[in-house]
Amino acid sequence: MPFMWMAELSSRSGLPVPTIKYYLREGLLHPGEATGATRARYDESHVQRLRLIRALTEVARLRLETVRQVLADLHAADSWHDAVGSAHGRLSPLPDRPPTAAALSRVQELLDRQGWDLAEESPHRLALATALDAMAELGRPVSDRLLDRYAAAMRDVAEAEIGALPDDREAAAEMAVIGTVLLEPALLSVRRIAEENASRAHTR
Amino acid sequence: MPFMWMAELSSRSGLPVPTIKYYLREGLLHPGEATGATRARYDESHVQRLRLIRALTEVARLRLETVRQVLADLHAADSWHDAVGSAHGRLSPLPDRPPTAAALSRVQELLDRQGWDLAEESPHRLALATALDAMAELGRPVSDRLLDRYAAAMRDVAEAEIGALPDDREAAAEMAVIGTVLLEPALLSVRRIAEENASRAHTR
Repeated sequence: MPFMWMAELSSRSGLPVPTIKYYLREGLLHPGEATGATRARYDESHVQRLRLIRALTEVARLRLETVRQVLADLHAADSWHDAVGSAHGRLSPLPDRPPTAAALSRVQELLDRQGWDLAEESPHRLALATALDAMAELGRPVSDRLLDRYAAAMRDVAEAEIGALPDDREAAAEMAVIGTVLLEPALLSVRRIAEENASRAHTR
Repeated sequence: MPFMWMAELSSRSGLPVPTIKYYLREGLLHPGEATGATRARYDESHVQRLRLIRALTEVARLRLETVRQVLADLHAADSWHDAVGSAHGRLSPLPDRPPTAAALSRVQELLDRQGWDLAEESPHRLALATALDAMAELGRPVSDRLLDRYAAAMRDVAEAEIGALPDDREAAAEMAVIGTVLLEPALLSVRRIAEENASRAHTR
């Protein structure tokens, strides 16, 4: 693998040298190979890591402390499945207000209908139940039928993403994070485009 | 329609009287029917509006100025289609960095393949192109195949949501906003649940 010095690492990653040195000191970037008391050389793994940090901070606007935790989880993950679970855990805020028991039951019924497992304390369970509560309070309860269609659509999305996973373990783990922070916004953009087009044919 | 005084409006909406008076002064809530120099009575439309404001501020965490604009758009909308367009416009931030011409072309190709129209200046066009750029920079370009599967899934979601639209125009317009601020987070929760379950069967 070709090596590079700090100056090239900076131009390849698009990050200033002081920023890269800060990430090295903070342990966000793994050290290069020391070639003397003050010099080190870097490789493609450093470029890739810096680009990932940039995407997480600049595009997904994550705080550096969150980025640090997400990256530490990636190293610890044994598989894509592990990485997906930990990335979702870090990137899913818990809702402010606790959901009602009725909404939690409806989420469990959805899981049962779909044959899905989910930890009791999963943030998605709470977030989905809180959204159901908010809709019900507005007098617009979400039907089981709509939830099941969401589930079917998201099952297709998950399968498509699995089909596009890279082969090596580390790259696949990285995709667990990228899928959440970059592909979800892309998916919502597509949703809004689809919605605007579907609504054109609809005149209520 | 049964009427109510301010105290009942407060208990029905879960908002303190001073907050409701503030929304009245600011024009976020339409006035009640005056029954004297200092008294007014309210109806279900006021309860519904206050619950919507609560959902937008407390659940979706929108700034009050954004809520004001979103509500004003709802009043001006002639149809659900109008309301969807204006709600998406208000609720979709423009990306910080402009997308590349290559990414914009790929979005246009997706639109052409799907038979979808979209304004040149649509925030979704820019947001989707920016996400494609970010993925490509990470060395994980998004394939047309994945984009088309996203499109198919989101087409199903849009159809399911149209099937669940309320009948009257105002309620349908409201759903354009609620769909974006409450149903999109619900959809992403379902995505994360689907992804975790699909990943269990997958051992890369």
